[in-house]
Amino acid sequence: MKLDVQWITGFVDGEGCFHVGINKNSEMTIGYQVLPEFTVVQHKRDVQVLHALKSYFGCGVVRSNHGDRMAYRVRSIEHLLNKIIPFFMQHQFKTKKRVDFQKFRRVLLKMQKSEHLTSEGLQEIRNIKNQMNRASQAT
Amino acid sequence: MKLDVQWITGFVDGEGCFHVGINKNSEMTIGYQVLPEFTVVQHKRDVQVLHALKSYFGCGVVRSNHGDRMAYRVRSIEHLLNKIIPFFMQHQFKTKKRVDFQKFRRVLLKMQKSEHLTSEGLQEIRNIKNQMNRASQAT
Repeated sequence: MKLDVQWITGFVDGEGCFHVGINKNSEMTIGYQVLPEFTVVQHKRDVQVLHALKSYFGCGVVRSNHGDRMAYRVRSIEHLLNKIIPFFMQHQFKTKKRVDFQKFRRVLLKMQKSEHLTSEGLQEIRNIKNQMNRASQAT
Repeated sequence: MKLDVQWITGFVDGEGCFHVGINKNSEMTIGYQVLPEFTVVQHKRDVQVLHALKSYFGCGVVRSNHGDRMAYRVRSIEHLLNKIIPFFMQHQFKTKKRVDFQKFRRVLLKMQKSEHLTSEGLQEIRNIKNQMNRASQAT
């Protein structure tokens, strides 16, 4: 299955999710681990679309999600910074997903500079995270 | 907002719905009315994308749906046959939505020949409708 760049943008505009997790982790000096994640979830009948996305981006994994659902997931900071983010910078979203995407990108750029390993940087990331994926966001 | 054809295909692949309603209607000789409908539902924050779809296709309406959700909706048989169906015949879906779309198209082609006004045609449409929008459908 060959995917067009604009088809990918439209599909992810509807179905994709940019999420930042912040988990307690005693192995980290700061006590917390920042876990950014790009996912596209589909019913298992459309798993071939998820594999086509994985193949297009050349990174990530396709795994089962909840029940009959499967997810294409990219968690690697390097792949997010070098593959996923540049693609959606070049092919812009039409929905308010672009707002979440920009916040997600800000978090990744901070992580690239290792700011998530400092208290101040972690707090900034937490503030950005708290403004993401909110149904009520206007801009 | 200008929409690319492949963006539209990708977005509708994820977010669109092709539905056939069959309602009791005593004003119809056959006692039932067939109501095909193409919809795209979004949170109201993205209503401008629905207006852009309406503008692109040159038909349909944008109306509130449930709660905070808005819908772009095309119900006119003429517009479905002459605008919506030809577009998605030319720009094919990648997900199993293409299966529902093909069934939807078969219903519309029957309606074009007024088959929905006969008992036999109505039963055929009912059979097609019962095979649509089922999560478990494999092909």
